[in-house]
Order: sequence, then C-alpha cells, then structure tokens
Amino acid sequence: MQAVHNIAEICAQHGITDVVLSPGSRCAPLTIAFARHPAIRVRTVPDERAAAFIGLGLAQSQQRAVALVCTSGTAGLNYAPAVAEAFFQQIPLVIFTADRPPEWIDQLDGQTIRQTDLYGAHAKGTFTFPADTSHADAQWHSARLVSEAINLAQQFPAGPVQVNVPLREPFYPKQGEEIRFEKVRIIRETTGAAHLAGPEVAALRQAVRTTPRVLVVAGQHRPDDALRLALRQFSTAYQTPVVGDSIANLHQPMGATYDLRTAPISHHDLFLAVPEPGLKAALRPELLITFGQSLISKALKLYLRDAAPAQHWHVQAAGPVADTFKSLTRIIRLDPADFFRQLAAADPLAEGRVLTATDEAPGAARPAEPAAKAVPGPAGPIPASAPERLTWPQAGWAVPEKDAAAKAAYATPWHKADRWARDFLADFMAQPEQPFNEFTAFHHALRHLPDHTALHLANSMAVRYANILGVPDTKSVEVFANRGTSGIDGCTSTAVGAALAQPARPVVLMTGDVAFFYDRNAFWQNYATPNLRVVLFNNHGGGIFRLIDGPRQQPELEELFETRQPLTAEHTARDFGLRYFTATTFAELKTALSVFFAPGSSAALLEITTDSATNAAFFEQYRAAVRTSFSS
Amino acid sequence: MQAVHNIAEICAQHGITDVVLSPGSRCAPLTIAFARHPAIRVRTVPDERAAAFIGLGLAQSQQRAVALVCTSGTAGLNYAPAVAEAFFQQIPLVIFTADRPPEWIDQLDGQTIRQTDLYGAHAKGTFTFPADTSHADAQWHSARLVSEAINLAQQFPAGPVQVNVPLREPFYPKQGEEIRFEKVRIIRETTGAAHLAGPEVAALRQAVRTTPRVLVVAGQHRPDDALRLALRQFSTAYQTPVVGDSIANLHQPMGATYDLRTAPISHHDLFLAVPEPGLKAALRPELLITFGQSLISKALKLYLRDAAPAQHWHVQAAGPVADTFKSLTRIIRLDPADFFRQLAAADPLAEGRVLTATDEAPGAARPAEPAAKAVPGPAGPIPASAPERLTWPQAGWAVPEKDAAAKAAYATPWHKADRWARDFLADFMAQPEQPFNEFTAFHHALRHLPDHTALHLANSMAVRYANILGVPDTKSVEVFANRGTSGIDGCTSTAVGAALAQPARPVVLMTGDVAFFYDRNAFWQNYATPNLRVVLFNNHGGGIFRLIDGPRQQPELEELFETRQPLTAEHTARDFGLRYFTATTFAELKTALSVFFAPGSSAALLEITTDSATNAAFFEQYRAAVRTSFSS
Repeated sequence: MQAVHNIAEICAQHGITDVVLSPGSRCAPLTIAFARHPAIRVRTVPDERAAAFIGLGLAQSQQRAVALVCTSGTAGLNYAPAVAEAFFQQIPLVIFTADRPPEWIDQLDGQTIRQTDLYGAHAKGTFTFPADTSHADAQWHSARLVSEAINLAQQFPAGPVQVNVPLREPFYPKQGEEIRFEKVRIIRETTGAAHLAGPEVAALRQAVRTTPRVLVVAGQHRPDDALRLALRQFSTAYQTPVVGDSIANLHQPMGATYDLRTAPISHHDLFLAVPEPGLKAALRPELLITFGQSLISKALKLYLRDAAPAQHWHVQAAGPVADTFKSLTRIIRLDPADFFRQLAAADPLAEGRVLTATDEAPGAARPAEPAAKAVPGPAGPIPASAPERLTWPQAGWAVPEKDAAAKAAYATPWHKADRWARDFLADFMAQPEQPFNEFTAFHHALRHLPDHTALHLANSMAVRYANILGVPDTKSVEVFANRGTSGIDGCTSTAVGAALAQPARPVVLMTGDVAFFYDRNAFWQNYATPNLRVVLFNNHGGGIFRLIDGPRQQPELEELFETRQPLTAEHTARDFGLRYFTATTFAELKTALSVFFAPGSSAALLEITTDSATNAAFFEQYRAAVRTSFSS
Repeated sequence: MQAVHNIAEICAQHGITDVVLSPGSRCAPLTIAFARHPAIRVRTVPDERAAAFIGLGLAQSQQRAVALVCTSGTAGLNYAPAVAEAFFQQIPLVIFTADRPPEWIDQLDGQTIRQTDLYGAHAKGTFTFPADTSHADAQWHSARLVSEAINLAQQFPAGPVQVNVPLREPFYPKQGEEIRFEKVRIIRETTGAAHLAGPEVAALRQAVRTTPRVLVVAGQHRPDDALRLALRQFSTAYQTPVVGDSIANLHQPMGATYDLRTAPISHHDLFLAVPEPGLKAALRPELLITFGQSLISKALKLYLRDAAPAQHWHVQAAGPVADTFKSLTRIIRLDPADFFRQLAAADPLAEGRVLTATDEAPGAARPAEPAAKAVPGPAGPIPASAPERLTWPQAGWAVPEKDAAAKAAYATPWHKADRWARDFLADFMAQPEQPFNEFTAFHHALRHLPDHTALHLANSMAVRYANILGVPDTKSVEVFANRGTSGIDGCTSTAVGAALAQPARPVVLMTGDVAFFYDRNAFWQNYATPNLRVVLFNNHGGGIFRLIDGPRQQPELEELFETRQPLTAEHTARDFGLRYFTATTFAELKTALSVFFAPGSSAALLEITTDSATNAAFFEQYRAAVRTSFSS
C-alpha cells in the first residue's frame, strides 16, 4: 500500500490542500492516507453527487485543484454531473476512484462496474494506477502518473481528470499501525505566458484604432483585478464599450472614482430586449472582441448573432474556441489580461508599468462611490495604497484624431442605453405600489447583500434575474454560477464548497425551489458553514416554464413542465440546523433581511414564497414597462 | 417534429407502456408526444437520478422495457448510476436524451454537453437520432433506429440503450394545436430458445447422474415459477442440493407439500460461517452448476472459491459469463429452466409434460404449510388448480442404484446443515431476553411481511440481514435488490417504481439510514403509492463499517467510515405525506407492525432506531452463539 499512501504525499507536494471523501471500504487506503497526511484537510460527504459539487465549489474558490475520493461501483458515476460542469467551467478536479483489480471486473462481485474512462468526453484525461506496485518500474509509474494527472488537471484550460486505483485487500492498516509518507519525487510544471511579437501587436492595435465600431464582450470569468484593470486601460485608450454579464465579474469597484465612459455595460439584458431597430443599428459592432466563457444574456447572444460583425476576435490562451456568434474570424492565443494590456500599452503613462486599481481616473465620478477596500478574495487583497498615483488618461487617447468622433459616436449609445436601463430599473423598483413577487423580492434581496459577498446564483431563474437586475457594483460582490453546463443539479453543493473554502467571508446562494430541493444533500454532512446564507425563492415549481413562450401555452404546463411541488424548506432547515427565516410580504422581507445577513453562529436560510402565476403576470408588466419607458 | 412524435408511437407498438419524464424545455417534443399518446402512461420526476431508478423499478416489476426522457446537459448524466445498475441487473431501459443539434455542441450554449455515447461501457448501445428528418431516408432511419434500440434493450441479456435526440426549435406545438401519430412500421424481433441435441443432453445427464457430489447454486434471479419447478424436478431426479440466496427467489411455496430433501438450501450464510472443517469437507462439490447473477453470501462465495470443484458449469443463454469461483469449465448456452427441465426429463412421469406447482410432492411435509395462493406477481398467477394430479417421484429416482448412496451421502449434510441453521435461528430469536437491536428487529419485521409482498432490500446491510435471517417461505414474498452494482444510490427509487407498477400489491422496502437519506428524492414527485411500506433501520451512520474487521479498528471509524449522521426520517415523512411510525423497543415495534402493514390510503414509513455500537456488540454475540451451538 505504500504506493497508494504516497498519492496523498504527491497531492500535497502539488499544493492540493483539500480532499472530499465519500464513505466506502474499497477506498479505505486512500481515505486513510489523505486523512493522516498533515498537509491535507479531508471532509466526508455521503452523497457523491453532492460531494463532487462541494469539491468543485472548493476548487473554484481556492483556485487550485481539489481531490475527490470515492469507493468502487456507481459511487464514481454520481460524480459525473459535477465532472461535466468542471470540464466546461474549467475547474481542476483530481478524481481518485477506488476499483477492484482488473481480473475481478465483470465477475459478479459487488460494487464492481467498468471504471476505466468513467467520464468519457468530460474528463481531460484518465489514468490507471498499477494494481501491483511491487516492481520498481511500477512504483515509478504509480508516482509519475499521479503527477501527470494533477498537472493535466491544472493546465489551462483546467478541468477534471480521473485516476482509477485498483486495490487488493487488506485495505486497512492493523490496529494502531502508523502509515508513513515517503518523500516522493514529483514532476512540477511551469507554464510561460504567450506574447505577441511587435509587428503583430502593431497590426492588431492598428485595426482597433481605425475601426470605428469596436465592441468588447466578456464571457463568464472569475473575478480578476489584473484583467479588470487591463480592460479599463484598453477601453479608455480606444473608447471601446465593454459588455459583461454579472458572471463576467467586471462590476467590482475599481479605484476611487469611476468614469461612466469606460465603465462596463451591464444592463444589456434589459435594453437589448427592447424591439428598437434604431438602437440596435447604433450598437452594431464591426469588430467584436471576446474572451471568457459563456454568456447568460440570451438577448445579447441573439443580438450579436444577428449583428454579424465583419470581424470577431476571441482571446484565449489555449483550448477549443466556440464560434458562439457565428462570426469568429481570429483566435488570439494570449491570456486576455495580457492581450488588453499589450494593446493598450502604447499609453506613455502606462508603458513599462501597469496602472493599479487605485490610480486616479478622471471623468464623471458617481456620488457615494466608496473607496476600494481590501477584499479578502481568492485573488488576494486589492492593495489599499499604491506607491505612486497617476492621472488616468482621457478616454480615446490612443485613437487618431480623425477617428475620434466616430469612436465616440459608437461608444455613446452603449453607455447611454446602459445608464437609461439603470435609471429605469431604479425608478421602476422605487414605485411605492410595487407588489411583492419573485422579481421585486429578488431585487430587494440583491440590494441587501453584505460587502465582499461571494454570490452563488443557481440555474436557471436566479442567475437570469440577477443578470437583469444587476449585481451591486459598490460592494465587491463576486459572482459564481454553474454555467459550464447550466445544470440545477449541484448549485447548492457548489455554494457549500465555497463557504467551506472561505469561512471568513459571506457566501450567499440565491436559488429557486427546484434547484434547492434537487440538491438538498449538499447539507447532509457534518461541517459547519456559519458564513453561508441561502435565499430560496419558492414558487413551488419550475417557474421559468411559465415565463417563456411555448410551455405556458400547453395543457401539460403544470404537471410536466413546471412540475408543481408542494415543499417548503422548513423541514430541510430543521434537519440540517439552518436558521430559518420566511417572507411572503415586503414587510416580512425587510424584517428578515435586517438580521438574516448578519454574522451568525450557523448557516441560515431565507425562504421567500411567491405565486408562480402572479410572478409570470408581473414579469409581463415589467417587460411592457421597459418597452413603454424606452419609447417615451 | 413528426419523426420525433412518432417515437412515442414506435415505443407503444413495441409494448412500452410507461415513460418516466424529467422536466425540461429541449425535451418538450418528446414529453408532449409521450404525454399525448393514448397507449402510454407518463410520470414526471424532477431529480433525474431518482427518475431513472424509478424507471428501473417499473421495468423490473413489469418485465418489459421502460423509456426515460430527459432534457439536454447534465440531466442525462444523473441517469448514469441507474444505467449501470440496469446494465448489470439486465433490465431494459430505453433512454431518450434530448440534445442540441450537432453544430451547436461546444459552442457555449446552456445545458450543452457531449451527449453521444453518454454511458460508455454501461449501455448496450447508443443511437443518434437524425437532426434533420426532411429527407425520406432520414425518416426511414429515424424510425428504424428506434426499433433497433428497443429490440437491443430487450434482447437477452437485457439492458439500457441510449437514443440521443438532437432537437431544433420550435419545441412546442402552437396553442391548441393537435399532434398526430402516424402508423409507423416497426421491426419486431422474435427470439427462439436454444435446445441441446440428444447426445449432448445424454452426456450432461450422464455426468450429473454419475458424479456423487453435484451442487446447484442459484445467483440473483427474478421470481420464476417455471424455473422453480424445473429446479425441483432436477433436484428430485438427481438428489442434488440447490443453494440460493434470498435474491435468487427460490423460496416461494411450491405445491401443497414440501420435501425437505429437495427444498432449496437458504441458510448457507449462517452455517458456512461456522469454522468447521469437517462440515466444509462434507459439503464440497465435484460438479458445480450455477445460473443467474450475483450472490449476496460472501461466506458461500469464499467457500466455493476455496472448494475448487473439478467441474463448474454455468447455464446462461447468451452474454458474458463470469468466472465467479475461479473454477468455470463449461458454459451452457440454454435458458436455465430449459436446461434443468431437459436434464430431468427422463422422468417417465415428467417426460412429455411438465409437472405443475400443485402436483403432489411426497416426503416430510412441514406442519402448517399453507396451500399456495394465486399470486398476482409479474409472471402471472400460479394456477390454483391443476388439470390432473400426479405423485411426485422419489428423490434420486434418476440415479443408478450403485450411485444412490453416494448421492444421498452428499445431499444429506447440506439439508441437515440448513435445517440446523433454521432451527438455531428460530431458537435464538425466541429467547425471551433477546434485546432490541437492528438484527432482532429486522427478524421481527421480516416475519410480519404481508402475503405476496414484493420485498425490496436496500444495500448494503438490509440485503445481508435478510439473507442471514431468511425470507419467510410461506408468504409468496418476491425479493428484489439492486445487486447489479450493489449501490445504495437508488434503492428507494427502485421500490417506488415497483410500487407504481403494482398498485394492488404490497411493496415493502427494508433499508438503512444512509441508503434512505441518500435517495430521499425518490419521494419528490406527485404520484401516490399507497401500497408502499418503508421499514427504515436508522443507526445514524453506515453501520456496516462497525460490523466488519478493518474499519472498526481505525481512529477514523466514526467520521470517515460510519459517517455519523443525526437525521431522523420524521421531517422527510412529513414533507412527502408518508404516514410515520417509530419503534425503539419491541413493544413499540409490535404495536406499530399491527397497523403498519395494513392497507392504507397512503404510503407509510416505520423508523426503527437502534444504536450502532449496541448492534455491533449483539452481532458479535450472535456469531459466537452460532459457533457454540454448532459445536455442541
């Protein structure tokens, strides 16, 4: 078993600190090795589906690989939904599936399936640990493949890998027996960043500079200060609008002031839904530059497909690239932050050094914009002071004078539309007679999020509502959602993993009832998450099906699409020791929110109950109000 | 969409009557087609993991294929545990996974994964429905492949198949629009049964006749009257002991009387655990004949591996055969019932006609053996009267006189050991001072099962306890367990599916707390199962780990192996409208059982709470008593 025990040592040397186990006997040698390794923290979660999503939440928050360990049989198949999400969301998971040795496969023994390559097209790789490590070459192989697996999981684009570990009895050390960890050699991987040669940079710059209608669209991306700063430099230099959904995480406060001409556009879901050909024409890009992963906004996606820009560059260092808008013409193999920084670096002020988040920016400072605070986020705190303060350059400084007016003429309608949408929403929600429903309650809850929240948005309505309503950009809220596959199957577990990873920070999950009850086993474990707050919008079914055309016209709506379900979360909260709050009116919601988000000794759940038909009717009213308000 | 709507018609023509849906939009054309087909009954279950096991339970009970329908994305991956169980338990499932059309895969759209061949080595086949059925050849292809998939799923050994169905919008008919079903041609498959030629039968008969020590061991098998009768004929003819776990379903009452010399051996888990070399030697077979799937009894498995019979024949009509005991020498490609009938058919009474269950059997009639009743089981009722009554032949009639003594000398210790074990258990359990714990409570609950129960035994302890304690053989109880993969992940859902399939029959699930809470979403649907009774043995953790050597000696026992969990099922019962009973003493258990199994208007749950450490200590006492009693 020494080679098996060494797996824990190899993981530790590669920087893995957290392992999620599920109970079993076949996996006992792995369980014991990880549990007894001094540099590794294990947690055990009985439902493997939840265990894998908790691991995903840990890895997403810690930005490093997490290992999973399960026993043989269908245990590993319960990981499959999280494995697919990790694959498409590019999160490194190293999955150790205990197995019987090869000669015992298909021999009618219990908990024995065909575990080789268990995740098919959704794992980056699959490795088979040697069943017998008595030969020196097998020992070399066993250690080498664990290093290879971890390196593969972490290489960009990161993702899940499987290491299948056939194990023969005895699985357990003798009573009182110590196990030891050998100092195993590991293979580390150091990755260089790609850089463009001078003439290539010049050509790309020239295109950006002289094309009047350049648009940057950000897909899902983890919060990244360096990227946000580079984007701000780029959009300032070329006066280029930057559009991002909430999950693009562009909304964090950057510096002490805020230039609306370079601020990211975030209300596109609202203003692109307006059937206004004039606006659509004004916003149409000639050159579209994208980076990151998926978009939430269907309005934006459809708009860009329809707009058909002549050029579409996608910036991504490695891996397959999607032609999401049917317009892709160039793949640029750079890290997006490097790309935007390099293209903007002709700024005489920025050349040779990078502006920091606290550098002074000019322009329309918004009232009551708080100073950036040190955020204990995964990327480390934003420095509270910078060594020197520079004046931020004027928007469009890198554009030739002859093109400046055209650049401004393109950027202005984007920023005006965004400001219009922001103001519309504020006015709409401020109307004193607004009734209590899912949409208005969601808005209200969003505004009350604590500072520095890690906000987890469940599929499918929660993440859509948040994208329409906007995440507060004054509170350093970071946004996560399982948009790799957009499944509802592990949203709660992912948030639990995030809460375990960052105990000093509020982790808020906003979710609907179907996603919540689906994944209740997220709470079926013994680890405290006093920083976790779950805001559950319970409309007793899949409310989305009543909001979209198609299912709501069918006689099967309630039984087969909405799937009406009568549960409240009260029993679940009692079962798992979650402090339980409810709200069915604004008054109750305000009372609850006044204490719900405050620090507490245990996790808390706020159940906001609304009526599906009322929600759907109000959402129609909201849509009508958007159209009316825009045309007036 | 006509080709997609035709899927429902093709399934109906192939005899599929039940479809389990899960909610989604991409799958709407399939949902609507199945929901509106007059010959098909749909049910919708939101958690796809539970949905697939419910489908498996339906198919297992109905002995015909069930279809599953899910939306695109990770939905289909949640089926994977049930798919693997269906593969190894040989249950036909036809899985329709809705998908985006191929050009949209990996393009960052929501709920899009790589769905081709989603189940890898655990599906019998995978089919891709054409994305475009406008061409006549594509229409032919679309209908043909659905027939092919259903036929493949049902061919012996049956199993799951995937049909991936790429769908383009619009998914929904217009409001009020009728959909129609075309009379599609389907391809039916008629399977002949293999027969052995005369000389081959004679050679096999000769071997059985002249080998003194022939043993038949039955693996997991669905209840099958024809097979039981054939086995009885065979074991009577050759005086051959037949050994079967509870899941082999040999224990049903056969005829009005009962010959203990030909009755199946069922207490081997008890007497083979006795470390008695003399007994082991006496029981050792020279020729082992097996059929069916897996064994539960580890004692039997280890014993047969150790016994190393010179000949081991396995009877199985088709498909891969396991060498479970490392002794396999011949695979016989026949249906087991045909095999045993053919080999026994030299009986002048049985030749040319088959004895029926009510034919009179001689020998030691057991007192108070009730007459067989008409069992409304899936194989149809046992005929309550036979056209003619025969006298059952004497045990060993087909054996040459010179070999008769040797045959009897081999069979006798098997039957004596079985009777000893049966008597031991009865005496042990009848001791008035026996304390209340999992083992004694399990025994008690088993004895109270209603007649004609479909008994579902969860992994892992419930099925083991039942195998030690024995299923009552006077009540026409049929036994099911997910022993294809021996997972705990869908035991409750499988029982729910069985209860839906047979509303007129009691379906009893006996389960532990880990399996129960793992799969609570089995109840998260809106279909009544008033015939379902769940007996939950809650010891607040994975009690098995305290019963086996290895984990119980480790310091990690409670946290990482047992995985202590504090839940009771009360809230779950309240959430899902299960009538809730509890027992923590024999008095409470007796009171509860007096009403719990009675017919009621809704499902009921009986939670028997015990202490894990006490259970483990008592189980040791039981083991010691077995050893002491045997040697005295």
